[in-house]
Amino acid sequence: MVVSTINGTSPLSHSNGTTIPLSTFSRNSFVNVEKGDPVAFRPYWEKVRDECTVEIKGDEWMSYLGDTNNLCWYMVPQMRDAILRLHNVVGNAVTKDKFLVLGTGSSQLYQALLYALSPSESSHRPINVVAAAPYYSEYKDATDILQSRLFQWTGDAALYDKDEPYIEVVTSPNNPDGTLRVPVVNSGVEGKIIYDLAYYWPQYTPITDQLDHDVMVFTFSKCTGHAGSRIGWAFVKDIEVAKKMIRFVQLNSIGVSRESQIRAAKMIGVICDGYKNLKSIESDHLFFDYSKRLMKERWEKFKGAIEKSKVFTLTKYPTSYCHFNKDLSEQYPAFAWLKCLEGIKDGESYLEKLKIRTRGGGRFGVDAKYVRVSMIGTEDEFIELCTRLSNAKRE
Amino acid sequence: MVVSTINGTSPLSHSNGTTIPLSTFSRNSFVNVEKGDPVAFRPYWEKVRDECTVEIKGDEWMSYLGDTNNLCWYMVPQMRDAILRLHNVVGNAVTKDKFLVLGTGSSQLYQALLYALSPSESSHRPINVVAAAPYYSEYKDATDILQSRLFQWTGDAALYDKDEPYIEVVTSPNNPDGTLRVPVVNSGVEGKIIYDLAYYWPQYTPITDQLDHDVMVFTFSKCTGHAGSRIGWAFVKDIEVAKKMIRFVQLNSIGVSRESQIRAAKMIGVICDGYKNLKSIESDHLFFDYSKRLMKERWEKFKGAIEKSKVFTLTKYPTSYCHFNKDLSEQYPAFAWLKCLEGIKDGESYLEKLKIRTRGGGRFGVDAKYVRVSMIGTEDEFIELCTRLSNAKRE
Repeated sequence: MVVSTINGTSPLSHSNGTTIPLSTFSRNSFVNVEKGDPVAFRPYWEKVRDECTVEIKGDEWMSYLGDTNNLCWYMVPQMRDAILRLHNVVGNAVTKDKFLVLGTGSSQLYQALLYALSPSESSHRPINVVAAAPYYSEYKDATDILQSRLFQWTGDAALYDKDEPYIEVVTSPNNPDGTLRVPVVNSGVEGKIIYDLAYYWPQYTPITDQLDHDVMVFTFSKCTGHAGSRIGWAFVKDIEVAKKMIRFVQLNSIGVSRESQIRAAKMIGVICDGYKNLKSIESDHLFFDYSKRLMKERWEKFKGAIEKSKVFTLTKYPTSYCHFNKDLSEQYPAFAWLKCLEGIKDGESYLEKLKIRTRGGGRFGVDAKYVRVSMIGTEDEFIELCTRLSNAKRE
Repeated sequence: MVVSTINGTSPLSHSNGTTIPLSTFSRNSFVNVEKGDPVAFRPYWEKVRDECTVEIKGDEWMSYLGDTNNLCWYMVPQMRDAILRLHNVVGNAVTKDKFLVLGTGSSQLYQALLYALSPSESSHRPINVVAAAPYYSEYKDATDILQSRLFQWTGDAALYDKDEPYIEVVTSPNNPDGTLRVPVVNSGVEGKIIYDLAYYWPQYTPITDQLDHDVMVFTFSKCTGHAGSRIGWAFVKDIEVAKKMIRFVQLNSIGVSRESQIRAAKMIGVICDGYKNLKSIESDHLFFDYSKRLMKERWEKFKGAIEKSKVFTLTKYPTSYCHFNKDLSEQYPAFAWLKCLEGIKDGESYLEKLKIRTRGGGRFGVDAKYVRVSMIGTEDEFIELCTRLSNAKRE
């Protein structure tokens, strides 16, 4: 049976809660691995779907207010508790003595942080915002969309040599290339650092350290795969920064969806309960075990396809000790970062001819011979991707 | 029983879905009618709570995408259908030949609209954003927070006399004073108009016209009272404006909570079903009938208290024919706009002494002898407000 898909997107993207049969791809339909829609983990959530059911009655959660005793007044206590518990279970961040600020996804928190970390005196020049290339393709537009006088995108952190204040965004593991990162700016001026830790979860990387930075941003989307919920959070050391962020979220959207908070809290609770009852549960029912195994299997299959193609090289990752899994482990990033071999100048166009839609290096501040490929799409899409890539030479 | 409240906010603001007993206020606790948390309609939603229950399973609504066939790709079809159906039932807006853009509350859409309606060439001066005073207290800060080079807050539309492009925000019925409004700028230059119709629903005002403007913004918060859901929407005539708004929402929060969309669609469905089955249903189960009766009762009680106090005067509203209710009706605004009589220069401070927390005229661009008072808080808060106001003279 050949099911052709609409606009080249996966049929599973029509997420309406009904079970959709796996499609196969026709020769002419695109495999779209351009975006990072994290639907790969859906089979796990199907397994535990009833445990995770959230019921909301008509008169519940009506108020703007979530917790008037918390600085972050729109966050409900269940959400706060769930986030703290999750970091306690995973051990990826020190949460003590920090302020927790909730956002409508981490995108909103990125903007809130630019606002909060910029000098507020209007006499100042805009503060420079930099990230080491290749950097997340949306930072530039998200920074410059409103042409703020407070901050401006300045590009590659590795090239930054101004004696002016700056904000460096350190994405670790990095989107697009999966590498573990530290700040790279070498300037006479002290900078402010935003750690974007969207992918610092055990399915993608060994948890090598319990990070303890002044500003750390996380997102529910890439942790559990529930991207539709638009839940992100930041741990912030400085109360003045936290207050400014909360003021930004207030003016931007008067808080964060209560329904999403309740559901995210429930999901996180199910994950944490699993690790609490470790001995009585199958490892297939432990979220990070399941999702790490899935990422590992995909990466092994993917590496095989790349080797067969002889058209690309892949980033190499070190093996490290994971404090969460208590073993040595490789990295299995959410995106693969391909470099085309000599002779192919534009990877995105090259793959477009193979009916594979990717995001080219130019969007990430580097050469067009690089492309980013999502590793967290649907299973059938991923299998088709591998098939097409392994046939690349013959096309 | 005397239950004192935390930080002077209503105990019902701790909305956690459990039934909270009505509190009475101690002499020293504040009645907080400063904000506009629309919890007044909760008793209606308690009546229909089970009909309105939404159940979301663990594997549902995971994707970023809501409907890849829609320009507004993060909006699920159920949400779109519910919004169109609601306007069809109420008759307050022409939705045909317009683009529907969903936002994380109308606050996000306000910012998206400023971005979309500003000239994009950076050579331009920032476009002036104006609204007739008294204007919504958050417009100024929401406009200027990021010190954009695209737009800037310029204040009272009635005083605008520049020969420069402008955006006029027309809030009708107006927040804070409940009046029905039309554009007021008289300039040689053509302006762009944002109609903020947050309160253009039958419980607050007669529906006199099916409005048909180029840009109309609505919010779920003030329509049904579900402020925690952060759902707003705009009808936009120009596809280019719609596209820019959607781009803004993408960069700002990558769409709108799916859980909130599903729930809002359900609530709106229950309201519309009621009016469909008009003959077989008690009027107490018809949302706008219920909520209008509630607003009417509150306004009658409130007017009595104000008359007794002899300290304030109230805005007068005309009676008009309501096409929805098919009768002549007064306005029952979500806020009362009080003017202190001679001798009281600062209404907010005066009422603070009576342990009533309000928002003073200065925040709305007018004299401090005006104050805004929420009419949509909890019932016990409202009763206490009336008691304290009617005793005002004696304090």
